[in-house]
Amino acid sequence: MLGRTYEGQNCSAARALELVGERWTLLILRDVLLRHLKTFGEFRASLGIARNVLSARLDHLVREGVLQRRPYGGHADHYEYLPTDKATDLLPVILALTAWGDRWAAPQGPPVLFRHGSCGAAVEQRVECAGCGELADLHQVVAVPGPGR
Amino acid sequence: MLGRTYEGQNCSAARALELVGERWTLLILRDVLLRHLKTFGEFRASLGIARNVLSARLDHLVREGVLQRRPYGGHADHYEYLPTDKATDLLPVILALTAWGDRWAAPQGPPVLFRHGSCGAAVEQRVECAGCGELADLHQVVAVPGPGR
Repeated sequence: MLGRTYEGQNCSAARALELVGERWTLLILRDVLLRHLKTFGEFRASLGIARNVLSARLDHLVREGVLQRRPYGGHADHYEYLPTDKATDLLPVILALTAWGDRWAAPQGPPVLFRHGSCGAAVEQRVECAGCGELADLHQVVAVPGPGR
Repeated sequence: MLGRTYEGQNCSAARALELVGERWTLLILRDVLLRHLKTFGEFRASLGIARNVLSARLDHLVREGVLQRRPYGGHADHYEYLPTDKATDLLPVILALTAWGDRWAAPQGPPVLFRHGSCGAAVEQRVECAGCGELADLHQVVAVPGPGR
């Protein structure tokens, strides 16, 4: 649908944004992954967006294999949308955006906290060095060419 | 500039996307944080986008305190753009997008690898439970209401 939005960028972040960078897409995935919403009507109620926009976003995610669409409730035109592994793998992006928003744009405190379902303890996202453990200083991260350069 | 793009969403991920969700913005921040680009001309060369789009994105980031603009080279109209802590804090978002793109959209392998500058070892991003350590299964992450709900 979009072609290569970031033509000329040999960059995995740019490739990721080509698939999930459109307005509303990451919030749809938040709803799928964390609120366990499944149907067009549930997404509409949660997001309050126009039907044609929601429909285009869902179609795109299905086409890209991020969501799986399947009939439900015995109606030929009722579908539910389920996350694939490609969707679940986006959870770290949503956690990182949430942590940043909690710190910089949530004067009332975090609207949502993340917990480990089976033990109830806090879930945290860390940037770590395989050599020396947690990287407290993010300025210490450097990018070097990889095999796909 | 955008007002509240995601009006009605009491969600830190949505708040974050209001500041950095516009097309090109996260790639500008990638260039600032990881490629250490600083000037309008350097961003233009890296991204190949229209001057007016780049200018609008940079103005927005300066207004929001994500980038600091300051004169350089003794020219009244030459500026460089430097990351604030609010920018550096976005590195986990870029790392998470990159990891996802590496896995799902980089058939030639990762274009870029992240290393710890001082020791050279690989930098990794982990989702961990404060109770039991690494969370191998992201399906185990649940969202519960926080103080800002």
